[in-house]
Amino acid sequence: MKLRRSERMVVISNYLINNPYKLTSLNTFAEKYEAAKSSISEDIAIIKKAFEESGIGEIETVTGASGGVIFTPGISEEEARSVIEDLRDSMSESNRILPGGYIYLSDLLSTPRILQSVGRIIANAFKGNKIDAVMTVATKGVPLANAVANILNVPFVIVRRDLKITEGSTVSVNYASGSSDRIEKMFLSKRSLKPNSRVLIVDDFLKGGGTISGMVSLLTEFDSTLVGVAVFAENAQEKRDRMNYKSLLKVSEIDVKSNHVKVELGNIFDK
Amino acid sequence: MKLRRSERMVVISNYLINNPYKLTSLNTFAEKYEAAKSSISEDIAIIKKAFEESGIGEIETVTGASGGVIFTPGISEEEARSVIEDLRDSMSESNRILPGGYIYLSDLLSTPRILQSVGRIIANAFKGNKIDAVMTVATKGVPLANAVANILNVPFVIVRRDLKITEGSTVSVNYASGSSDRIEKMFLSKRSLKPNSRVLIVDDFLKGGGTISGMVSLLTEFDSTLVGVAVFAENAQEKRDRMNYKSLLKVSEIDVKSNHVKVELGNIFDK
Repeated sequence: MKLRRSERMVVISNYLINNPYKLTSLNTFAEKYEAAKSSISEDIAIIKKAFEESGIGEIETVTGASGGVIFTPGISEEEARSVIEDLRDSMSESNRILPGGYIYLSDLLSTPRILQSVGRIIANAFKGNKIDAVMTVATKGVPLANAVANILNVPFVIVRRDLKITEGSTVSVNYASGSSDRIEKMFLSKRSLKPNSRVLIVDDFLKGGGTISGMVSLLTEFDSTLVGVAVFAENAQEKRDRMNYKSLLKVSEIDVKSNHVKVELGNIFDK
Repeated sequence: MKLRRSERMVVISNYLINNPYKLTSLNTFAEKYEAAKSSISEDIAIIKKAFEESGIGEIETVTGASGGVIFTPGISEEEARSVIEDLRDSMSESNRILPGGYIYLSDLLSTPRILQSVGRIIANAFKGNKIDAVMTVATKGVPLANAVANILNVPFVIVRRDLKITEGSTVSVNYASGSSDRIEKMFLSKRSLKPNSRVLIVDDFLKGGGTISGMVSLLTEFDSTLVGVAVFAENAQEKRDRMNYKSLLKVSEIDVKSNHVKVELGNIFDK
C-alpha cells in the first residue's frame, strides 16, 4: 500500500499506539508502505516529537541489524493528577456509601475511558521495570488488570476464589480474608502463569491486605517474582501488614450515619 | 500547544483512536493546537483518507453549529478473517482439551492483542446499531465485554452468579444452567444499568444458552432492550433454544479419548 507521507504518519502512529512495548523494525514499515527506510526514519522522528510533546509516550530507537522502534505509552503528571482528582470527586459523592461502610465503585471500574487512563497511570508508575504479566483476583480486579495489561502489552492472570472446571489443573493457597478471622482459599490455573515470570499485582480496593498477601504467596508457588502492587483505592483506616504498594486514591473516612465519605489522592504521587 | 501540521496530524489521530464514537468539534482541535479551523479541516481529510484506506475505521463529519467529527473504529474483512483463523488454529491444539470435554480458553481471553482484535470484530458486526451498554456474566466474559465496550466507548455491566455486598441493591432472575436440569440465580446491581438502555450481550462460550436467556430476562427487569448477542465460541453439538447470535468460532467436535478437537469459523462471516 503506497501512501503519502502525511497518511503514512497517521497509520504508523496508529500501529505504534496499538503495539506498545513491541520492537518493530523500520523495514517492516518500509515494505508495508513502499517507502525508503530513510523516509520512514524521518516519519518516526516527527511522530516521536509529537508523542513526546503531547505526553502520549516515548519512542525509543534501537540501532543495529535487529533494531527498530519501541513505543512506551506515558502520561504527564498533569494529566494523571487531573484524572485522579476527577475520580476523587466522583468517589466522594454521598450516594456511593453502601450499608456496612462499603463504597460502590462498579460504575467507575466499568467505564472504558476511566479504565484506560487508570491503566496508563499504573503502567507509568512501574515504567522501567520488566513485567511479564499482571495478576488480579476475580471479579472486580479484572477490568483494572486488563487495562494495565493493555498498556504493558502483556497477558493478565485471574486468580479465583472458587474452583471452575474450565480452568483445568489449579494451584491453591490459603489466605486471611476480611479482618483476618476467616481463612479462605484462592486458586490459579496451573497453565495461566509461566515459571520465572515477573508479575505486577493489581486490585480494586486494599483493606486488610489478605487478598494481596494471598496472591504474593501464589507467586512463590509459580516460582515467580513480585514487581509491585497497585490498587485503585485503599482504606486508610484499616490496619494492615507492612506492604509496599501504590494507591491511586485513599478513603480516609466513611461515616455511614451522616452519609459522608472523605477521599484523598493516594500515594502514587508521593515522591 | 503550537505544532507543525505533521505533528498535529499525529496527535489528532491519537485523540480520535482513543475517543471512538465521540463527537468532537473542529474548534476544540483548533484551540488546542493554535491552528486555523480550515487547517484542522484539511488535517482531518488526510487522517480520514489514511484511516479508511488502511481499515482503521471511518471518520464522519457532522456539519452545523454543533458539528464536528466522529471516529468509528472498523476492521477489514481480510484482517478479521485472519485474526479468527489464527484463533481457530490455537483452539484446535489438542492440549486444550480438559477432562469433561471442556476447552481451555483462559490464555486467549487474557491476551490484550487478541482481546483488542476480537473487540473490533464484534463491535464492527453491530455497526449502525445504537448501543448504550455491553452486558456479560462474571468471570470469563468480563475481558470480552471490556474489549467490546472499549471500542464502542460505552460502559459494560457485569452480571454475577453470587451476591456481593459491594454491589448494593441487586435484581435477580432465575436461569436454567448446564443441560437445563438445574435452576440457578443471577444478580445485577440495580444501579449498574439505566432504564431504557440498548444492550449488547457478550459471552465467552455458548452451550445450552441458559446463561444468555437469563441475561435477556434481566434486561426486561431493567426496562432495557436487547440489541444482539455475540459469543467468542459456540458448541455446535449442543441443542439449544432458538436464539439469534453471532459467534466468532464454532467447536464442532470434541473427542476427549483421542484428544481431538475440531474448530471452525463461527457464523459472524455468514452473509
